[in-house]
Amino acid sequence: MGKHLLKLSDLHTDEIIAILDRAQMFCQGIDIPNFSDKIACNLFFEPSTRTQYSFNVAEEKLGMRVISFNPAASSLNKSESFYDTVKTFDSFGVDAIVIRHKVNEYYNELLGHIDAAILNGGDGTGNHPTQSLLDLLTIRQEFGSFAGLKCVIAGDIVHSRVAHTNYEVMRRLGMEVVTAGPAEFLEDSLESEDFDHAVKTADIVMMLRIQRERHAASMSMSGEEFHRAYGLTVEREKTMKDRAIIMHPAPVNRDVELADCLMECDRARIFKQMQNGVFVRMAVLERAVKR
Amino acid sequence: MGKHLLKLSDLHTDEIIAILDRAQMFCQGIDIPNFSDKIACNLFFEPSTRTQYSFNVAEEKLGMRVISFNPAASSLNKSESFYDTVKTFDSFGVDAIVIRHKVNEYYNELLGHIDAAILNGGDGTGNHPTQSLLDLLTIRQEFGSFAGLKCVIAGDIVHSRVAHTNYEVMRRLGMEVVTAGPAEFLEDSLESEDFDHAVKTADIVMMLRIQRERHAASMSMSGEEFHRAYGLTVEREKTMKDRAIIMHPAPVNRDVELADCLMECDRARIFKQMQNGVFVRMAVLERAVKR
Amino acid sequence: MGKHLLKLSDLHTDEIIAILDRAQMFCQGIDIPNFSDKIACNLFFEPSTRTQYSFNVAEEKLGMRVISFNPAASSLNKSESFYDTVKTFDSFGVDAIVIRHKVNEYYNELLGHIDAAILNGGDGTGNHPTQSLLDLLTIRQEFGSFAGLKCVIAGDIVHSRVAHTNYEVMRRLGMEVVTAGPAEFLEDSLESEDFDHAVKTADIVMMLRIQRERHAASMSMSGEEFHRAYGLTVEREKTMKDRAIIMHPAPVNRDVELADCLMECDRARIFKQMQNGVFVRMAVLERAVKR
Repeated sequence: MGKHLLKLSDLHTDEIIAILDRAQMFCQGIDIPNFSDKIACNLFFEPSTRTQYSFNVAEEKLGMRVISFNPAASSLNKSESFYDTVKTFDSFGVDAIVIRHKVNEYYNELLGHIDAAILNGGDGTGNHPTQSLLDLLTIRQEFGSFAGLKCVIAGDIVHSRVAHTNYEVMRRLGMEVVTAGPAEFLEDSLESEDFDHAVKTADIVMMLRIQRERHAASMSMSGEEFHRAYGLTVEREKTMKDRAIIMHPAPVNRDVELADCLMECDRARIFKQMQNGVFVRMAVLERAVKR
Repeated sequence: MGKHLLKLSDLHTDEIIAILDRAQMFCQGIDIPNFSDKIACNLFFEPSTRTQYSFNVAEEKLGMRVISFNPAASSLNKSESFYDTVKTFDSFGVDAIVIRHKVNEYYNELLGHIDAAILNGGDGTGNHPTQSLLDLLTIRQEFGSFAGLKCVIAGDIVHSRVAHTNYEVMRRLGMEVVTAGPAEFLEDSLESEDFDHAVKTADIVMMLRIQRERHAASMSMSGEEFHRAYGLTVEREKTMKDRAIIMHPAPVNRDVELADCLMECDRARIFKQMQNGVFVRMAVLERAVKR
Repeated sequence: MGKHLLKLSDLHTDEIIAILDRAQMFCQGIDIPNFSDKIACNLFFEPSTRTQYSFNVAEEKLGMRVISFNPAASSLNKSESFYDTVKTFDSFGVDAIVIRHKVNEYYNELLGHIDAAILNGGDGTGNHPTQSLLDLLTIRQEFGSFAGLKCVIAGDIVHSRVAHTNYEVMRRLGMEVVTAGPAEFLEDSLESEDFDHAVKTADIVMMLRIQRERHAASMSMSGEEFHRAYGLTVEREKTMKDRAIIMHPAPVNRDVELADCLMECDRARIFKQMQNGVFVRMAVLERAVKR
């Protein structure tokens, strides 16, 4: 029975740091295990490019055998329940199952019925633990540690798995975390701040994707209006602190959350985050399948 | 040139038993070959989760290299004929081609034109040899042998590949086999019996999926009506013999063919069947590619 | 940083011959490298069976780890730009990226921003270098060399990547190349000839697929009319030179470009071309990733 990864709030800080340490080793090409006798299974019930294929590359780099099933893309399998589908793949004797599903905490109905380790690739508006881990790895590579750093998470907070997970874990690691954005996107339970002030004082400006596909009604402002009021414009970038960095979980709506020309600027760590995503996923896969 | 697996009626009983013996060894983790120099190709012209991914896992467990093409899911390739598509993959030099197609005996037009071994993953309403093999393996694990056992195959007989293949091979192995279900689903050529009587006297109650997608017109009764009259209800299960088991090829229409709560009860071997599916597919793949 | 393969006109004749020499060795099973530490990524933004899966088989035969993403088939990922999608996979640390895209010279915006080697699997109506290489390999296997051979490329020239690439490279290798077909399909810049005369005098009759999907309006003649006027009919085949061969990049519209019964006749090398496609793709993959 492997070790699940469902949400970061389940993990002690020590465990999180241990995962980051392994990811950093993999980043440097050190001590990469060979799991050629293990089978990983990717079940993405919601579309995903970045998370799914990042896991896929991580699995391949660990030498795992990979089975990928895309119910979201295939429109097959309409009549079979989520539970029966996962249980089917578990019956095949796979070692780890990576799942993305639109239902929050979808995994609760699986626990105790599944032998494979479950790795959460995103549940509804709930958690996205590997995204947070790759964010943390990117921050630690930049600043060496976490305590005392200030991060502003800006934009579509309410629809974001990343915001919720990061807010909790970053505070636990001693960081100052604030949210910013239009009132319709904020949550009362999360501390917020004026965006312009936050940009000037933060070490990390983390912009979130406007998830148009999750909005029941259309957003009350246009992309251009959002960019002017709450996007990281060329002008705002100039007010950032000297060593401050720009992060974004991607895909980016260019010229909405972020000015197009900032995407690969010196401060941007967006493609670096994607690179680190492979290493943290290797670390959680190792944790899931090694005896 | 490898050994095709087209339908079980082509195989001597000895060959069937030899395949089950190998599958049982694989089940116990014994003598698993490494075919890392072999390429398996999965061509599913009709949607399938269980069969396709079970073959996929089997191929991976044998160390094979795997190419998967899903014309059913992709809606690509509309203009190219079935023959030319299969011949294309054969030209690439693959060793085994697993095919599912809606045409009965689709393989006849390929024989003699293809170098790879063909493994039939289901042809129309014709045959589904690996499903029968996994059923046989599950029965033998339970009862040690076949002769004298009674199996009732119940439900949508007329649309089922499994019913036809199992009826023939189980009788050949010395089992008593009867069918049961509503008149519209039965076939004159297969012996049938009252369902309630069959449930009380059978060692194996094998429920079939109602294949709504294959019915030209809608079924004359609702799912609930079917369940009461011909489904394995909680009440009927209580009338089963002491050591009798429940089987179903899946996916199950819960509360139609089978009461939801019986799906994972002590008698149920449904997920066990899926598990065994990997082992019998390993055995027929080995048979197909080994020299 | 690996070696891109974008278009054949970038390559010296010596390099082309070197690729064919390696492909011929792979065809004979000689000196096949093992790149189990390399990851190949297939990104097909336009549908493809033959090219995509031929690359896939080639990657597997080289022992590479393979990631396949089908935006064309999945209808996912609508909002993310081509550049960001490719850059994402590059960030994952893959070694080679095979791309097909409908934009001519799509690769120009990637060069200098991508670490992986780009292998062009077809760009718009531009180039299709591996198709030309497999054509050349097939011709060399047949005739031993290129100089002095005559090839007629017939049919839908204007929509064909193959025609453009082959015309240039075959002339460079000392072959006589002419085009033939209805006026609406020809290009002024490419020499053309009467089809019947060309068939009688050519060593290679290369028929092209009528790409109905690329025609803005419907073709002015029916498939039957085309076949009579510009197709390789049973009658025309009889006028071919003794050792002359028939080629076609496939998929074939049977009885349009080519009489159905000629598809696997003694002169036909169509499935041979597909076979050779794997070997030339192994050669360009090796060139791309070996240090």
